[in-house]
Amino acid sequence: MQALWLEDRQLSMREVAIPDAAGHGEALIRVRLSGICGTDLELVRGYYPYTGVLGHEFVGEVVESPDPTWIGARVVGEINDACGTCATCRAGRPTHCEGRTVLGISARDGVHAEFVRLPLANLHRVPDSVSDDAAVFTEPLAAAVEIVTQVHISPTDRVLLVGAGRLGQLVAQVLALTGAELHVVARHQLQRDLLHARDIATIAEADVAARSYDVVVEATGSPSGLDLARTALRPRGTLVLKSTYAGEVTLNLSPFVVDEITIVGSRCGPFAPAIRLLERGDVDPTQLIAERYPLADGLEAMSRAAERGVMKVLMQP
Amino acid sequence: MQALWLEDRQLSMREVAIPDAAGHGEALIRVRLSGICGTDLELVRGYYPYTGVLGHEFVGEVVESPDPTWIGARVVGEINDACGTCATCRAGRPTHCEGRTVLGISARDGVHAEFVRLPLANLHRVPDSVSDDAAVFTEPLAAAVEIVTQVHISPTDRVLLVGAGRLGQLVAQVLALTGAELHVVARHQLQRDLLHARDIATIAEADVAARSYDVVVEATGSPSGLDLARTALRPRGTLVLKSTYAGEVTLNLSPFVVDEITIVGSRCGPFAPAIRLLERGDVDPTQLIAERYPLADGLEAMSRAAERGVMKVLMQP
Repeated sequence: MQALWLEDRQLSMREVAIPDAAGHGEALIRVRLSGICGTDLELVRGYYPYTGVLGHEFVGEVVESPDPTWIGARVVGEINDACGTCATCRAGRPTHCEGRTVLGISARDGVHAEFVRLPLANLHRVPDSVSDDAAVFTEPLAAAVEIVTQVHISPTDRVLLVGAGRLGQLVAQVLALTGAELHVVARHQLQRDLLHARDIATIAEADVAARSYDVVVEATGSPSGLDLARTALRPRGTLVLKSTYAGEVTLNLSPFVVDEITIVGSRCGPFAPAIRLLERGDVDPTQLIAERYPLADGLEAMSRAAERGVMKVLMQP
Repeated sequence: MQALWLEDRQLSMREVAIPDAAGHGEALIRVRLSGICGTDLELVRGYYPYTGVLGHEFVGEVVESPDPTWIGARVVGEINDACGTCATCRAGRPTHCEGRTVLGISARDGVHAEFVRLPLANLHRVPDSVSDDAAVFTEPLAAAVEIVTQVHISPTDRVLLVGAGRLGQLVAQVLALTGAELHVVARHQLQRDLLHARDIATIAEADVAARSYDVVVEATGSPSGLDLARTALRPRGTLVLKSTYAGEVTLNLSPFVVDEITIVGSRCGPFAPAIRLLERGDVDPTQLIAERYPLADGLEAMSRAAERGVMKVLMQP
């Protein structure tokens, strides 16, 4: 089958074997759509060493399964394959399993391919009313939902979101549902237009009042975004780090102690609520689709996704 | 009156006027004992610019008061003088009031002196059963108690404390009361002896298992302490920063995001529970007293307190 392959920070389209799902006791899924995530781009830049098929955002159809009731089901899939038996798994934190593989990120071939294998335990059926175009956003939407599993955002809170890229747009839609007073710092006009279309307020960086927000979500992954987030937060406020940071960041930690700030790192989230929000239409990610490419043009798709301000790029095998 | 004065990072003993408490509508307190805190030493090093009488840990006796029922009372005093009317005060966070003065730290003369003035609202009566030697620790003990106001430490948690200096010893005693499995990394033999005398377990740095503690409290204020704390914490664990850090710290933030760590900055705490713990004898800080000096020997006292591994140094006017 055709697949987008990463090795030594080099991308290539190559022919690889169809995954041996049955041999691993897993389901084989024909990919219907895959989405390019910022993490895909960071892996190419060497954020983390990975060799294999890239990609972890997808919607597909089960074509082989140890449990035949899944065959033909349209599915999305959680990306962490946990062992289920280690102390971390038994403590109820399987997404942090020390022995996990991660779809298209760590020791498990990803979804920018014609087929992918995953354990049945990772799969979620997609309701008929949720289109492929919406379902392909389930994984990043779950990551956005993770914030509200970690931090109680009260409807009376003032919330600032710094960054309105691919993930930031989904975070904005989820945060808006809390009823909190939400302001989003969005650098590009397209980002602002997308937010305004959802009646989400944007704010210019210069207008962000210092020490005035109860919760700030940093979704740029840049030191300047982190500085702004820090400045905007009130004493005893909560700073959510929703992006990873390339390299080291130099921080003056004393203000975090003096102001008794809580910092919460936030990564993968739960699929079930994300699917519910898509089904109800409370979140609509399809406006974020910028481009579609055939999988065969995967290299071009990745180049396009790496351009500044480009939203979601999808690939179709 | 005699006072220990800080100006341009220079300490001196000098004669200053007795504070005009009545003119400010405040109580005048005769200092019975004052304690030297790490913050006093950091202010001398220039951590924060401050000019005035140094010191914020004390026990004293009210000699003038707008409410005469306080006269003669033995008291300790909270160090933040909040305005009471700003948005931060009205939101119930007076210790973070933007207009506050801070005793011996910011725009308010401190307690290494014969007398000090404070608003009545800052004062707490000391129960007769609590000695001056114990009461003088109320302020740092309250800072230790602050941790358990911010973080729920379950009796089933594994907790690591990194650092067992002046503040760390009090933190250890407070954390031990939770019933959690507590290990303390203490660099000096005296620190370990003091902990063992309270049946608190110490652990060698080399024996700290990676990714195995639910909660880690960092109380060294050093980058190496922070590294150890980070390493010891399990995914989704909580890191409490109990010390300020001199200068900037370079951090790789990505592991905090990937492991979804919560970081909590922790500063001043509530006096009432600290006094209750002293009254009940659940915490005994008096073993931490290393030396006593007459106030007149304040410069010598500060030098002694700055030596490595020296616990609490007290001054008596």
